[in-house]
Amino acid sequence: MSGVGIWFVGARGSVATTTTVGLLAIRSRLAGHTGMVSELPEVAAAGLPALDGVVVGGHEVVEGTLGKRAEELSAGGVFPPALATVLAGDLAAADERIRPGVVAGQGTQRAAAERVEAELRAFRDEHGLDRVVVVDVSSTEPPVAGDEPALATIEALEAALDAGGSPLPGSSLYAYAAFRAGCPYVAFTPSPGPRVPALLALALERGVPWAGSDAKTGETLVKTVLGPMFAMRALKVRSWSSVNLLGGGDGQTLADPENAASKIATKANGLESILGHAVDGPLHIDYVPDLGDWKTAWDLVSFEGFLGTRMTMQFTWSGCDSSLAAPLVLDLVRLIARAHELGAAGPVEEFGFFFKDPAGSEVHALSSQWAALSAWCERAGRGDL
Amino acid sequence: MSGVGIWFVGARGSVATTTTVGLLAIRSRLAGHTGMVSELPEVAAAGLPALDGVVVGGHEVVEGTLGKRAEELSAGGVFPPALATVLAGDLAAADERIRPGVVAGQGTQRAAAERVEAELRAFRDEHGLDRVVVVDVSSTEPPVAGDEPALATIEALEAALDAGGSPLPGSSLYAYAAFRAGCPYVAFTPSPGPRVPALLALALERGVPWAGSDAKTGETLVKTVLGPMFAMRALKVRSWSSVNLLGGGDGQTLADPENAASKIATKANGLESILGHAVDGPLHIDYVPDLGDWKTAWDLVSFEGFLGTRMTMQFTWSGCDSSLAAPLVLDLVRLIARAHELGAAGPVEEFGFFFKDPAGSEVHALSSQWAALSAWCERAGRGDL
Amino acid sequence: MSGVGIWFVGARGSVATTTTVGLLAIRSRLAGHTGMVSELPEVAAAGLPALDGVVVGGHEVVEGTLGKRAEELSAGGVFPPALATVLAGDLAAADERIRPGVVAGQGTQRAAAERVEAELRAFRDEHGLDRVVVVDVSSTEPPVAGDEPALATIEALEAALDAGGSPLPGSSLYAYAAFRAGCPYVAFTPSPGPRVPALLALALERGVPWAGSDAKTGETLVKTVLGPMFAMRALKVRSWSSVNLLGGGDGQTLADPENAASKIATKANGLESILGHAVDGPLHIDYVPDLGDWKTAWDLVSFEGFLGTRMTMQFTWSGCDSSLAAPLVLDLVRLIARAHELGAAGPVEEFGFFFKDPAGSEVHALSSQWAALSAWCERAGRGDL
Amino acid sequence: MSGVGIWFVGARGSVATTTTVGLLAIRSRLAGHTGMVSELPEVAAAGLPALDGVVVGGHEVVEGTLGKRAEELSAGGVFPPALATVLAGDLAAADERIRPGVVAGQGTQRAAAERVEAELRAFRDEHGLDRVVVVDVSSTEPPVAGDEPALATIEALEAALDAGGSPLPGSSLYAYAAFRAGCPYVAFTPSPGPRVPALLALALERGVPWAGSDAKTGETLVKTVLGPMFAMRALKVRSWSSVNLLGGGDGQTLADPENAASKIATKANGLESILGHAVDGPLHIDYVPDLGDWKTAWDLVSFEGFLGTRMTMQFTWSGCDSSLAAPLVLDLVRLIARAHELGAAGPVEEFGFFFKDPAGSEVHALSSQWAALSAWCERAGRGDL
Ligand SMILES: NC(=O)c1ccc[n+]([C@@H]2O[C@H](COP(=O)([O-])OP(=O)(O)OC[C@H]3O[C@@H](n4cnc5c(N)ncnc54)[C@H](O)[C@@H]3O)[C@@H](O)[C@H]2O)c1
Ligand SMILES: NC(=O)c1ccc[n+]([C@@H]2O[C@H](COP(=O)([O-])OP(=O)(O)OC[C@H]3O[C@@H](n4cnc5c(N)ncnc54)[C@H](O)[C@@H]3O)[C@@H](O)[C@H]2O)c1
Ligand SMILES: NC(=O)c1ccc[n+]([C@@H]2O[C@H](COP(=O)([O-])OP(=O)(O)OC[C@H]3O[C@@H](n4cnc5c(N)ncnc54)[C@H](O)[C@@H]3O)[C@@H](O)[C@H]2O)c1
Ligand SMILES: NC(=O)c1ccc[n+]([C@@H]2O[C@H](COP(=O)([O-])OP(=O)(O)OC[C@H]3O[C@@H](n4cnc5c(N)ncnc54)[C@H](O)[C@@H]3O)[C@@H](O)[C@H]2O)c1
Ligand code: NA
Ligand code: NA
Repeated sequence: MSGVGIWFVGARGSVATTTTVGLLAIRSRLAGHTGMVSELPEVAAAGLPALDGVVVGGHEVVEGTLGKRAEELSAGGVFPPALATVLAGDLAAADERIRPGVVAGQGTQRAAAERVEAELRAFRDEHGLDRVVVVDVSSTEPPVAGDEPALATIEALEAALDAGGSPLPGSSLYAYAAFRAGCPYVAFTPSPGPRVPALLALALERGVPWAGSDAKTGETLVKTVLGPMFAMRALKVRSWSSVNLLGGGDGQTLADPENAASKIATKANGLESILGHAVDGPLHIDYVPDLGDWKTAWDLVSFEGFLGTRMTMQFTWSGCDSSLAAPLVLDLVRLIARAHELGAAGPVEEFGFFFKDPAGSEVHALSSQWAALSAWCERAGRGDL
Repeated sequence: MSGVGIWFVGARGSVATTTTVGLLAIRSRLAGHTGMVSELPEVAAAGLPALDGVVVGGHEVVEGTLGKRAEELSAGGVFPPALATVLAGDLAAADERIRPGVVAGQGTQRAAAERVEAELRAFRDEHGLDRVVVVDVSSTEPPVAGDEPALATIEALEAALDAGGSPLPGSSLYAYAAFRAGCPYVAFTPSPGPRVPALLALALERGVPWAGSDAKTGETLVKTVLGPMFAMRALKVRSWSSVNLLGGGDGQTLADPENAASKIATKANGLESILGHAVDGPLHIDYVPDLGDWKTAWDLVSFEGFLGTRMTMQFTWSGCDSSLAAPLVLDLVRLIARAHELGAAGPVEEFGFFFKDPAGSEVHALSSQWAALSAWCERAGRGDL
Repeated sequence: MSGVGIWFVGARGSVATTTTVGLLAIRSRLAGHTGMVSELPEVAAAGLPALDGVVVGGHEVVEGTLGKRAEELSAGGVFPPALATVLAGDLAAADERIRPGVVAGQGTQRAAAERVEAELRAFRDEHGLDRVVVVDVSSTEPPVAGDEPALATIEALEAALDAGGSPLPGSSLYAYAAFRAGCPYVAFTPSPGPRVPALLALALERGVPWAGSDAKTGETLVKTVLGPMFAMRALKVRSWSSVNLLGGGDGQTLADPENAASKIATKANGLESILGHAVDGPLHIDYVPDLGDWKTAWDLVSFEGFLGTRMTMQFTWSGCDSSLAAPLVLDLVRLIARAHELGAAGPVEEFGFFFKDPAGSEVHALSSQWAALSAWCERAGRGDL
Repeated sequence: MSGVGIWFVGARGSVATTTTVGLLAIRSRLAGHTGMVSELPEVAAAGLPALDGVVVGGHEVVEGTLGKRAEELSAGGVFPPALATVLAGDLAAADERIRPGVVAGQGTQRAAAERVEAELRAFRDEHGLDRVVVVDVSSTEPPVAGDEPALATIEALEAALDAGGSPLPGSSLYAYAAFRAGCPYVAFTPSPGPRVPALLALALERGVPWAGSDAKTGETLVKTVLGPMFAMRALKVRSWSSVNLLGGGDGQTLADPENAASKIATKANGLESILGHAVDGPLHIDYVPDLGDWKTAWDLVSFEGFLGTRMTMQFTWSGCDSSLAAPLVLDLVRLIARAHELGAAGPVEEFGFFFKDPAGSEVHALSSQWAALSAWCERAGRGDL
């Protein structure tokens, strides 16, 4: 058995539910591995833990059950309805292992962090797990403003928490507790999470690896292959206009411009670094409830070629965000577990392949990220990172 | 001065004319290098010949002048009208160096080949050039049927020609003459050209490098970055449907299904080798005179993700074929000239980056081709291929 | 009760099955009237028969059951799976009323026609129906070649049939039997059906109304609103290129160019009559099994405006053909039943609104067809056609 | 000769310049009538004044010359460069007849209005014209807030102006002066113009006809034919998402959300009235300088069909706004001149065909508007409105 646990922050969200259903379906031979990067030979070479025996738990602030969420998602076409029915039992069991999440303002952050840390340790011990990977798939938070002194160093952070303060954004509190519990961490969202100085240091101090931020699943994925194409052919992109329409999961949260700000930032900076210059053109994210889980993105690229001739390319991506995200969650859990097994600590730069805003790397071109990931997996396969 | 000559087969065609105008415009500082891959640092590192001093000549079977063709193309938006007017003088001079092409059935192929070889040598001597690169940008021919005995070996070919036979397809006759005249060769079209056994051998025997076939400029370029994206993310492409609409240049030739066959073959096989399996879906090439030089291609990709969920991506590429092709011609001339200078012979596999049907290589993913090209240029820069 | 029966030719096809499921679902208050034109006030004004009490039967040449077909279609997303399950009983009952269709070459056409006529009369009597509407939703046939003498007059037809000949295309044999049985007829397909001189005369002689041909459901529907827009604004359409990709239902039949010929003809002629001139551009119909019932059509319109400026519009229609067709079948059954009730005979020109190739009318612009339909319904509401 | 003058407000703007070039080109037989609705038989039947002899003048607040603007626009592909060169002389002559426009804050509105009125009368007398049509094609202004007392009645307005006040928005001041000068008026922009109570009354009092507001040229034109299509086929539109990208002409003005507000309002309300219900989905207008005069609009329509099945249609409109607008200006000038000739006063509802926000009408479906326009032209042709 793999001895690995997954602990979701946002355990009944669309991504978390789809991942849980997928894990159970694959384990019951009801589904194949389509979409799972870690099943490609180049990545499997790393000697990754099997999915059989993986135990799922998590925190959630919303009522309801995994079973109910699975029915809603399958009705929305995210996965076949049969899976929600057949796996109802397993989903109910998993639902038992979901604990109430941390809600800002309820008690001190110190108490909340201690509770989360204790629940992570209890989960590991209760199921005799070698390691528990914490995966943040909770609602997107606004970006953190500037350099908050209390987040500058571990000492400053501990002092602020001891004094009953609330220096940590929600996502960062979970990261803090995870690192103290010795848990590898996946920052799947664009929220701050571990990317504040104090927590960067804590991860290294506790010898815990983490990867992030903000999974690259749809329109941004396409940008990081098309962008390099124009660059390789010396074609000058003049404007790149995008509109993202989504109704399900995170869509409602992103309807609030403040939250959308973090998503828009991660989406935009990749392109500029690939092309080597800023480009004209809006980047819209719109909440269209009618479209449900079916995210539709339209991009218009206007570029200049030889002798100044102007040409265009447009594309429409119509994908189910949760279905694109879920297999990447399983991939990242297996990869970060293997990294932890091999003694890695801090951000694993080579996992940038999965992210819009890759921690510890400026590389955004998908093919370059793929080369780095494949090389890491080869080294991991030989056991010498 | 670079001491390099370009000899076009199809010298008044849309690609040839646009390339000639571009060369003259860049030399007169009337245009920049946008679109020229050989001006990117990774490729320029090869130590390529400068464009200044490059002399242009060629064969053509159609009346008219480069000046007239340039006016037509600029009216069609391929490049600014001002360039056609300002460069009228240089274009007239270049037009003087165009000789009547070889028309099937006019005299024996042996006589025609000798004439072409003599004209290539005369062109080199008259302008004191170090080397003349022959670039085939003539109308697309039907594919060659199976293994023609007279094309199996150099001896069989010479015997057939001496006997007054006509074993060579049009494009292959030019390649034969080029190799005998010691000229490096660029097979820009999907026509057979050098890819018959006898000529493959002749190129090696005469120590002449060549590159081909069928330049990758628009829709196929996009396929060789999007295809790898789906493969890297373990997303299963189920069908890939394409329709290509074009009115200018080669469009009329491709209206004849026989000719289109060679183009459709080169377009299709790349995708299959990238994805590792065949895909459903038609590939249309339609002649739509009304669209002129503005090729519009629409592709619909239907793919399967995690737990069998079906999603789609569609794109419309609206580009000016001749404007996309011309800078690649200049790139290939400089690269093959450098290869010749360094003693290379036969197909230069690393130039697959420019082609739909790369000679000597099975690699179609653009990023892998880019890596091979960059590595070659680095070696060439150190002078040790 | 409405006293109306529907007799499908092709009773287990995608359109027939979807229509039958829809009828049963509406009758059981499991579905609303979305998609049904006859529920719009302007059309309901005609005083149409209710759907309650409508009895369904038909001919089919393929084994299997309505229940099985309903499951397949719902799995393909044509309608919610729940409907196939809940209505299983009603579907089994309807399946009992399906008779073996006429297969070319099995016995004489005279015998087959008599059998079909007898089965139609038996169906009407057995269920005490006022009238039975025969709806042809069978696989598309090739167009009829020129003026076949045996189809020129009723006499010539009867003589040929008596002599054991086979003058009638498959779809026309059903129309012949329907008219002799006094059944109003809907030619939902592009097949010949009633549109041979002998049958045009027979319908008038027997006082039977009919409507056709080839239902206008997706891409052609859009053409007949966009075409008039360009015409009304004096914008000159230069080329209109279309590619239709479909996998389900009729897709397989249309993969055979001979059958597709009739569909391509009906699709093309509408546009020419709307614009007043022919237009450049291909019209492809491709069978892409992977897309299932989800027909995707892409059109590129290139037009000329003021002072010769060239502009474009492109659209992608992604619709479920059977789901678009089924409500129109119910509309046409109610409308032709009402026409029969009011004594109409021959083609009802005002039902052109539903067809790509409207019998008895040259009007293709949807808005003009809508005006004619609304006026007919007003007159029918007053009982004086 | 036609005895008609055109007086542009915004005489050197993209629409005004393109219209002036077009008028001169048609008069010199250098261009045809493509794009001119008034040359379609149904509209020409109204007995409209010829274009020959039409004299152009106007107000403008920006320096530069018509000749210079024509060169810029032709370089941007709005019309062939040759026209700007050949018509340079006529453009210079027209430029002489352009007067400095009214700039808010420079002197009292009473003085400005009197100046404008005097310049309109002088223009008419100087060229012996029967009538001068004032066409507002100036930059879009923000919408007028609520019911401004000084704009409620003619008396209140005159009193406010006499008292040295500035009750009128810029566009309304020109309308006020036009009506006092007895000039028919075309409100081509979404700015308030004549649509304040006092000016509605003034037009009737002075017996002057006017038409407006906000010309329907591109994406909204398509909405008013596609919207009715869904309605006629009982298909329920659930969401309609639009993004408009433009760089030239009015684009910069609309970059300011305040100005865009009036454009967004006119764009949205048409669809709701056609469908009979509000629809989900954003409406973006983005200024993308790189796209120049080439407006690109993408719309995604998500609709529900029979038995709840969800389907989509998307389209991309890529048109040159000024080239689409200019012929409509010439049409409206001829139509409103004919209306004036026949004694019409106040808003001519039947000209709604040309507008996003038709004055005096709730009809938005293009085909219904066309029917009303054709009927008006038939009556006008018989001289009895
Ligand atoms: N689906 C994708 O393609 C994709 C790609 C990149 C990033 N992401 C990110 O993944 C995250 C999840 O996306 P989703 O579609 O599942 O969103 P969702 O809204 O369906 O799920 C988020 C869940 O987090 C829960 N939550 C909120 N605050 C919490 C807290 N303090 N503690 C515990 N749980 C909390 C919510 O109740 C909700 O159930 C989002 O941040 C999204 O931006 C998704
Ligand atoms: N433009 C692109 O993006 C692109 C991409 C890949 C390949 N190509 C290939 O490049 C070639 C040229 O394309 P184009 O658009 O310039 O076509 P074109 O028709 O404008 O030019 C071809 C020229 O070849 C000439 N020609 C024909 N037979 C000849 C002969 N026997 N000897 C000498 N000249 C001859 C023709 O007269 C014509 O002038 C085609 O084969 C095309 O498939 C073009
Ligand atoms: N779905 C649409 O949007 C649409 C629009 C216009 C026209 N149509 C036409 O409607 C027809 C049905 O479409 P579909 O998608 O249901 O096709 P389908 O192939 O699913 O159904 C056709 C049925 O006809 C049956 N059939 C064939 N020959 C027969 C015979 N001699 N007697 C009795 N039955 C016979 C077949 O077995 C099949 O079950 C086609 O002709 C199609 O072109 C469909
Ligand atoms: N092009 C279209 O398809 C279209 C469609 C509908 C409406 N319109 C409207 O037509 C108007 C013109 O569009 P455009 O593209 O020509 O814009 P533009 O910016 O090119 O032209 C507007 C002109 O008005 C001038 N102007 C501004 N304030 C003025 C004043 N007080 N007096 C006189 N002149 C003044 C400006 O200097 C400018 O030259 C805009 O309001 C636009 O919204 C255009
Ligand atoms: Na994404
Ligand atoms: Na159709």
